[in-house]
Amino acid sequence: MELTRFTPDDFAQMDQLYRRNLVNCLSGFKSLNLVGTLNQQGVTNVAPFSQVFHIGANPALMGMLVRPDTVPRHTLSNLVETQYFTFNHVRESFYQAAHQTAARYEESEFDATGLTPEFSPTHPAPYVQEAHIKIGLKFAEKHPLAINGTILVIGSVVEVWVPAACLQPDGFIDLAAAGTICSTGLDAYYNAQPIARLAYAKPNKPVTKLAEEE
Amino acid sequence: MELTRFTPDDFAQMDQLYRRNLVNCLSGFKSLNLVGTLNQQGVTNVAPFSQVFHIGANPALMGMLVRPDTVPRHTLSNLVETQYFTFNHVRESFYQAAHQTAARYEESEFDATGLTPEFSPTHPAPYVQEAHIKIGLKFAEKHPLAINGTILVIGSVVEVWVPAACLQPDGFIDLAAAGTICSTGLDAYYNAQPIARLAYAKPNKPVTKLAEEE
Repeated sequence: MELTRFTPDDFAQMDQLYRRNLVNCLSGFKSLNLVGTLNQQGVTNVAPFSQVFHIGANPALMGMLVRPDTVPRHTLSNLVETQYFTFNHVRESFYQAAHQTAARYEESEFDATGLTPEFSPTHPAPYVQEAHIKIGLKFAEKHPLAINGTILVIGSVVEVWVPAACLQPDGFIDLAAAGTICSTGLDAYYNAQPIARLAYAKPNKPVTKLAEEE
Repeated sequence: MELTRFTPDDFAQMDQLYRRNLVNCLSGFKSLNLVGTLNQQGVTNVAPFSQVFHIGANPALMGMLVRPDTVPRHTLSNLVETQYFTFNHVRESFYQAAHQTAARYEESEFDATGLTPEFSPTHPAPYVQEAHIKIGLKFAEKHPLAINGTILVIGSVVEVWVPAACLQPDGFIDLAAAGTICSTGLDAYYNAQPIARLAYAKPNKPVTKLAEEE
């Protein structure tokens, strides 16, 4: 494949939207979660985030990056105020509503887009009922990144909901079977098609598919 | 779908590997990059990272999470020493070699796995020749997360290589056409199948696919 080269000088001369699209694609495919929160007046909020990640397994910690200049600006203030938030994996059946929650609504994005808030006795933050994988988190830490004002939010997992049929004997969750989709850039959505799981890599052992090994 | 519920009490009682598999799947699909570095003696290193993300478009900044207890332990010391590193999108044609670079080799993982180091006049860090999307970065910041010792590394983009045929007129990179794959958990690999791109969300506008709008 013929490759095109870009340098910081090229970036500086680009149209702003062209640069945003290009640079937002560079990391590769991204997860896609709806983040549910509640403000102190009890108003629900839900917004899409594509930068959610694993921080640790024991204790179970997850993080997300919040851009100060992006639309879902209430998410951060809500989760700091009320201490809880939820991650909800987006599926193809509601990806258009999920995308639409990024619009600057005055009302709750649940009401505006037809998504259904769902509550647990464990914590006050709303889940998205339409999601099959849902995680409740308690706000733990917030790290502002001096370099450009992006904020890393870390939460500790307080509750997890996973489809029983998608749980494998070793704890692996078959996200493709659960219908979880992924994203790239600012606006592109994808289904995932399994290639394989590979056995733990060791220096003197050939690469093995996990099913072959069992 | 019938959902199973897990709480921190369940996590505490789980087998360690079961818990690692489960919690590593919770964020959703992840990008998959080989990170190339060089130490001060000129020995190349390459290791897989699934937690690489966009930090900012202007200036172009990217980040990655490094677990202190994971295998690719030389990556961090190398990039701090020699100041540069590369991200290389993994494709299906070399995903097994990419997986294998996580093994604890004494020699360079390029030699051990048959991947080809490739150099640019712009900076000293090795690219993976087999990759179609390659990004050169200069080390900018390192944030240790007090909560569990995970380290957030931020770099500024100094060079980008993208297949010309995968660049769309608005700067969007068609990652599926470029062959970029994604991952979940510790060991699962996936191809991505496009659903759609959606137009910018506004409160009083119905959701529109981007091709429909143009």
